[in-house]
Amino acid sequence: MPTQDPHKMAAPFAAAERGVALGPNQLNNRISDLHFCAIQVHVEDFADIRAYFSTTKWNRLCMAEKKRFMQIKENHLVMWSLGLSFVAPAFMRREKPSQGRVCSPEETDSEEVQLWTSGLTAGHGSSTADRRRTAAPKGGGVCRQSDKEVPNMSHLLKKRKLDKNVQENLYFDSYSDVTIHEEMIADHVRTNTYRTAILRSSDSIRGRVVLDVGAGTGVLSMFCVQAGAKKVYAVEACSIAEQAVKIVKQNQMDDRIEVIRGTVETIDLPVEGVDVIVSEWMGYALLHESMLNSVLYARDKWLKPGGLMLPSKAELYISPINDLVVEDRLNFWCTVKDQYGIDMSPMSEFAKKCIMNNDIAINLVTVEDVLSHPSRLAELDLHTVTPEQVASVRGTFSCECFGSAAVNALCVWFTVSFPGDDKPLVLSTSPFKPETHWKQAVLYLDSPRDVMQDTKVVGEIHMYPSEESARHICIHVECAIGEHKKQSKTFSIPDGYSDAQQ
Amino acid sequence: MPTQDPHKMAAPFAAAERGVALGPNQLNNRISDLHFCAIQVHVEDFADIRAYFSTTKWNRLCMAEKKRFMQIKENHLVMWSLGLSFVAPAFMRREKPSQGRVCSPEETDSEEVQLWTSGLTAGHGSSTADRRRTAAPKGGGVCRQSDKEVPNMSHLLKKRKLDKNVQENLYFDSYSDVTIHEEMIADHVRTNTYRTAILRSSDSIRGRVVLDVGAGTGVLSMFCVQAGAKKVYAVEACSIAEQAVKIVKQNQMDDRIEVIRGTVETIDLPVEGVDVIVSEWMGYALLHESMLNSVLYARDKWLKPGGLMLPSKAELYISPINDLVVEDRLNFWCTVKDQYGIDMSPMSEFAKKCIMNNDIAINLVTVEDVLSHPSRLAELDLHTVTPEQVASVRGTFSCECFGSAAVNALCVWFTVSFPGDDKPLVLSTSPFKPETHWKQAVLYLDSPRDVMQDTKVVGEIHMYPSEESARHICIHVECAIGEHKKQSKTFSIPDGYSDAQQ
Repeated sequence: MPTQDPHKMAAPFAAAERGVALGPNQLNNRISDLHFCAIQVHVEDFADIRAYFSTTKWNRLCMAEKKRFMQIKENHLVMWSLGLSFVAPAFMRREKPSQGRVCSPEETDSEEVQLWTSGLTAGHGSSTADRRRTAAPKGGGVCRQSDKEVPNMSHLLKKRKLDKNVQENLYFDSYSDVTIHEEMIADHVRTNTYRTAILRSSDSIRGRVVLDVGAGTGVLSMFCVQAGAKKVYAVEACSIAEQAVKIVKQNQMDDRIEVIRGTVETIDLPVEGVDVIVSEWMGYALLHESMLNSVLYARDKWLKPGGLMLPSKAELYISPINDLVVEDRLNFWCTVKDQYGIDMSPMSEFAKKCIMNNDIAINLVTVEDVLSHPSRLAELDLHTVTPEQVASVRGTFSCECFGSAAVNALCVWFTVSFPGDDKPLVLSTSPFKPETHWKQAVLYLDSPRDVMQDTKVVGEIHMYPSEESARHICIHVECAIGEHKKQSKTFSIPDGYSDAQQ
Repeated sequence: MPTQDPHKMAAPFAAAERGVALGPNQLNNRISDLHFCAIQVHVEDFADIRAYFSTTKWNRLCMAEKKRFMQIKENHLVMWSLGLSFVAPAFMRREKPSQGRVCSPEETDSEEVQLWTSGLTAGHGSSTADRRRTAAPKGGGVCRQSDKEVPNMSHLLKKRKLDKNVQENLYFDSYSDVTIHEEMIADHVRTNTYRTAILRSSDSIRGRVVLDVGAGTGVLSMFCVQAGAKKVYAVEACSIAEQAVKIVKQNQMDDRIEVIRGTVETIDLPVEGVDVIVSEWMGYALLHESMLNSVLYARDKWLKPGGLMLPSKAELYISPINDLVVEDRLNFWCTVKDQYGIDMSPMSEFAKKCIMNNDIAINLVTVEDVLSHPSRLAELDLHTVTPEQVASVRGTFSCECFGSAAVNALCVWFTVSFPGDDKPLVLSTSPFKPETHWKQAVLYLDSPRDVMQDTKVVGEIHMYPSEESARHICIHVECAIGEHKKQSKTFSIPDGYSDAQQ
């Protein structure tokens, strides 16, 4: 069943859907022939549109570029493009027109637009504008330059994604120890959400005893002291515990924090119970090499009745995606002939086998690649979930595609929530949100399928530990796209991807 | 002894040294207080300056940005900066003034400059310009914006370096097979230099028999057919040979190219000898996991007297560097307190131990980090070098530092040369040249040292196979910086860094 995202993950879409219509010739992912276009979107809640742009590559353009491409006029958002390529997020690629209008730059009274149109021949400009009048993307869009002077931003960002994709491996090579912790602390979404959650729970923490499971450098323990904890037991099995001791001392918190070297399963605490358990236990795809079982062990052994779990809930989400990086990589082999006079196209098939294999790929998925609203797969209540339940997490999903695209993968991500008086605080690893070091888990399908607006992508997911190693997660997928017959595939994370805290 | 670079690697410096002087308050690596500055460099050979800029981050600015910052006026290069941070390459950071002049924007008649100065208060502009009159970097520079709207380009590039640093690991994980070959073919410097070298040797190749050692996808063999080879034996031990067979067939070269699956040490050729041996055998730091011994074996067994080796020469170079990525990473831990109120500075020492360890780091070194002209360590004549000589490569070096900096590492790289009638064709992996997938080998010193202009960095290098694995290279360094006592350290490449062709 499709699930409404409880954290307003999809909020920008709501506003976008009140925007302009999209014609049938706007169905391609890459609209490279767009020479001249402006779209005007009526937005009642401009904050939503802003929220969308703040999470996308739009945000990586400098303000001067933004001013060229976007203008806010009361409750209208005007965007335009001139000799630029234009990639609309999938949610804007709809076949069926609805309310709203597309306007050419001439129709606006924007000074900026006049500046931009002045260099055009009238014929070219207006004819293209006319064509776009029924063909502009729905809701807004991300504009970027693709001429030779300005590198194709999409390519750069995709490249960057590829580069970042392998960053984890570094942590277990030469730079091992410190780089893991550097990445975790530098992950502002992670560190700041935990800090905010802890500080805002200070009523439950002040004067109480806290257990930090897998404390690492001890940063969460120190946040708990900042929130007024009487005592924090920082349990850490790895040698990083030695650094935690030094840092705690440096911060003059050694009277409040006791660093205990060992696993929660083997150490003992000098108290009968604790009031709060805090832990950053999440691994790739939530459960890969995670410490959740250790956290549940600690909960069942030490957490007092009515005690607080931070975080208290975890949720898994899924969406079909079109992974453009993979499409580019497969296509690379067909470009060699132009460069060197050698036809290397036979490599494409080999490349597909190598890249779209049974590995769970840990990639940054950009929101433009996501083809539907998220569907919630599963929810774990960390106060009550059992190790047996964690060992076999099942979920169903049903997504309706935004518009025409080729589904070549499924994207899985998670959120964890911290309780709050009014509403929970959410640490999200969604592709619609700012990136985290967890990125997203990408599952490549053996048989990519073309979809249209409202095509259903439905299926089931089963997550369970691999037979070789209980810490390694496997994901089995059954998936049916539109009228195509169901496909199934089992994925696992390749060696070398270890959780940051193990 | 310092060695003149035979391939004009240092040519840009020659022009730069005819430029403006640098005052003593310009000695910092990062000149963040530069609000207003223009420098004018008299260049007799503008092509040299252009060559410098074409290899640096300058080239990554879009043309609109470049036009803001640089103007060519006959044989003068005018550069300016306004509210920007400015990082001068080390070779421009000299204490001792020489000929040339610094001019403020007001002194130029450039329309662009007028445009830029118009937004300034006269007082601020001129006073800073006056200060810079005796303080601007020598020879030119790379300007970039560092305000919040435009991301700090240095940081992005450094980040990118870090990301790329670990790209190899990917190739031996999930994406293994194809990614290795994708990277090699996509390395335009590598592939195009080989192609050019082969085509320009067509007089020696036409109608002759060629042996390609470690043929991979067979691309070099096909270049040899393009150059007129009668027959090419493409020897490849790995399963990629199956793809080579398909590609050769696709290009209708299967009558000329015979793909032979196996190692050169174990296979047999249906001919007594070959006229040409072509091979792309180079690994990281030239010799890591390289196939050079296999190439020498093939040479001694099959190459006819007077036959051609492609390439025919390899050279190793070294320079002291200041690795800013590492400095940034060590400094990261001191920035946590400002963000989260927790003093994590004790981690810096731990980070230093983890990062500046005994591993040979394979990094992209930017030219701004290089602190001297390169010193040539060793030369291998591939027609005559023996496996015994390759098993113990020794070299001495002597470098004179450009200016004030902290030497925290040595950078080693290589070139290979292809013979030519007039001059050899060089495939260079120098930090002064466009990047290749080999990047550079970085050796971190245990004791970083401050240097000044003309401080000598002298020492010896010994490269030899590790005891654990003959394919793994070790590098022993003895190094004396200025008056400091000699330091020595032995490095090796960590597991997971394998040569692309193994």
